[in-house]
Amino acid sequence: MSEIRKDPASLTWIISATERGKRPTDFKEEEKPQRRLRRTGCPFCAGGEEMKAPLREHAIWPGEQDKKTLIWKTRVLPNKYPALYPDVELSQAQKDTIYHYLSGVGGHEVIVDSPNHDDTLATMSIEQISAILRTYRQRYRFWWTDPRITYLLVYRNYGVEAGASLGHPHSQAMATPIIPHRIYEELEEGRNYYDQNQECVYCRTIQVEKENEPSRKVFENEAMFAFCPFASRFPFEIWILPKDHYSTLEGIPQKKINYLAEALSEVFKKLNEVLGDIAYNMIVHSAPLRTPGLLYYHWHIEVLPRLTMPAGFEWGAGIYINIISPEDAAVALREA
Amino acid sequence: MSEIRKDPASLTWIISATERGKRPTDFKEEEKPQRRLRRTGCPFCAGGEEMKAPLREHAIWPGEQDKKTLIWKTRVLPNKYPALYPDVELSQAQKDTIYHYLSGVGGHEVIVDSPNHDDTLATMSIEQISAILRTYRQRYRFWWTDPRITYLLVYRNYGVEAGASLGHPHSQAMATPIIPHRIYEELEEGRNYYDQNQECVYCRTIQVEKENEPSRKVFENEAMFAFCPFASRFPFEIWILPKDHYSTLEGIPQKKINYLAEALSEVFKKLNEVLGDIAYNMIVHSAPLRTPGLLYYHWHIEVLPRLTMPAGFEWGAGIYINIISPEDAAVALREA
Repeated sequence: MSEIRKDPASLTWIISATERGKRPTDFKEEEKPQRRLRRTGCPFCAGGEEMKAPLREHAIWPGEQDKKTLIWKTRVLPNKYPALYPDVELSQAQKDTIYHYLSGVGGHEVIVDSPNHDDTLATMSIEQISAILRTYRQRYRFWWTDPRITYLLVYRNYGVEAGASLGHPHSQAMATPIIPHRIYEELEEGRNYYDQNQECVYCRTIQVEKENEPSRKVFENEAMFAFCPFASRFPFEIWILPKDHYSTLEGIPQKKINYLAEALSEVFKKLNEVLGDIAYNMIVHSAPLRTPGLLYYHWHIEVLPRLTMPAGFEWGAGIYINIISPEDAAVALREA
Repeated sequence: MSEIRKDPASLTWIISATERGKRPTDFKEEEKPQRRLRRTGCPFCAGGEEMKAPLREHAIWPGEQDKKTLIWKTRVLPNKYPALYPDVELSQAQKDTIYHYLSGVGGHEVIVDSPNHDDTLATMSIEQISAILRTYRQRYRFWWTDPRITYLLVYRNYGVEAGASLGHPHSQAMATPIIPHRIYEELEEGRNYYDQNQECVYCRTIQVEKENEPSRKVFENEAMFAFCPFASRFPFEIWILPKDHYSTLEGIPQKKINYLAEALSEVFKKLNEVLGDIAYNMIVHSAPLRTPGLLYYHWHIEVLPRLTMPAGFEWGAGIYINIISPEDAAVALREA
């Protein structure tokens, strides 16, 4: 038996086909040494004395530095192979009468998440994760002021199977002149739900998930709630939501940053214990820039482990087949 | 410089970021012997005498057989690990007040595309490809009569990177009680375009692409047109469209099947010559079952080479970064 499920907050449908699947522990991976590759000559490592200076010549943002050692904690660099460019004029037009295009204006940044090559979100201190989150917040605040840019997507590719080409811990930020399709759809569905129910679908989801049996909860603290969503597209998918309603991340106060850092630390420690050092994509979902007070959107973080590969059906249908139910995944993660 | 492009027939946006990229020939792959793995004991190979009988005990459809040798050409088998099940009652309900789900009713079939383990679409005879296409058509006609089923997605995963777990040439067919998200979006956008322009966006695309300079055309014959779409999500993405307007594949006559088989043969020979024996997903996009006469939808086949990996930005934004322009890809493929 399988089940076809719809995500209440988007147009995503998934097929929960657990008979194809394995037990949660079957996903546990062998150590993958390639994630630690290229330590020698890594461009992001804290190196000789000159690297202790907070600002490298080409840094976009120097980042915070440790008050005692003067070594930087995080820094923001331009992507060596950017997909979008900040020094381009925004233009748009029709080509060949039916094709619409925009100039490739935007920003494509690398956030170096730590001076230490071997740090992971499962092993870093909560203070270091807080420094990363403050850097994310700083990038939202930076791009907020650019009228050409409507959206900032902050994300993290970890491991070769997740598309990472460097082993050093890093995140990326892409500033775009359009609202990305996936976010646009979430905004639309969130507004539809709000219009019909006069409440935020994410706020309602937290209420439901707190009481639901079998529970899909993974972790919670005073400010954050982490769970495996009902319509998980991927095995062990986890969403982390703030309990209070805010539509954008950029206004998050330091106290909440600490709670979020703790939630991330716990979530990745649990993933590590159940599955080993797996590849994943982590994505911050925040409302478009300059829209902090939307009643119908709720910022959150999605963690998408890369244990299975989307194939023809997923690409053709836009429906995901998930061979581990979120209920089973949550049990394994809660118990870790 | 890069360019942000929108597909006129869907809500897909892509970033054409060719400065990150390589020349078309840089994608040429080494021979990947794993695609030929597991020849010994392959469950799909034509084997001893008993395998020459057209019907294996558990076949869903016996397929055609060669009149001289009596060996089967194609056959349809149940997927060993189905995502959906035909013998389930269609039911739907709300869970926990916000979660909508359906029972996992449907069909998940394997189409064995040839009795020969080493056949590929680049090496098969046009007659063999025609037999595969007739099998696709037969599955559309079969599922047409099941009122619980609204959509059939026929697709092909080739190579490990495309999600194939078996080396023997095969396609799959998934019958679903919902219209898949990606198709739903194409139908919506196709209807919007039709309402505004009183023409099919795909018919218009063929007209535009025939004359466009620089050309994105890859191949054409009397009935079929193959090109790299303006908003290609992946390097060397190719769409094959029938020149005459039909919304579903199931009514396709034998003569057109021969033209389509020739187009597929040519397209895969060209991909093979430029890139080697690469992994790909191939997907038939046809209107929902029992809707043959839609004026605003045009069935087509999408070929998605698996040369790059979607990562955090693609999953988070739903926007694809493509490092080879379709114009460059088309030149390389036309000249092959």
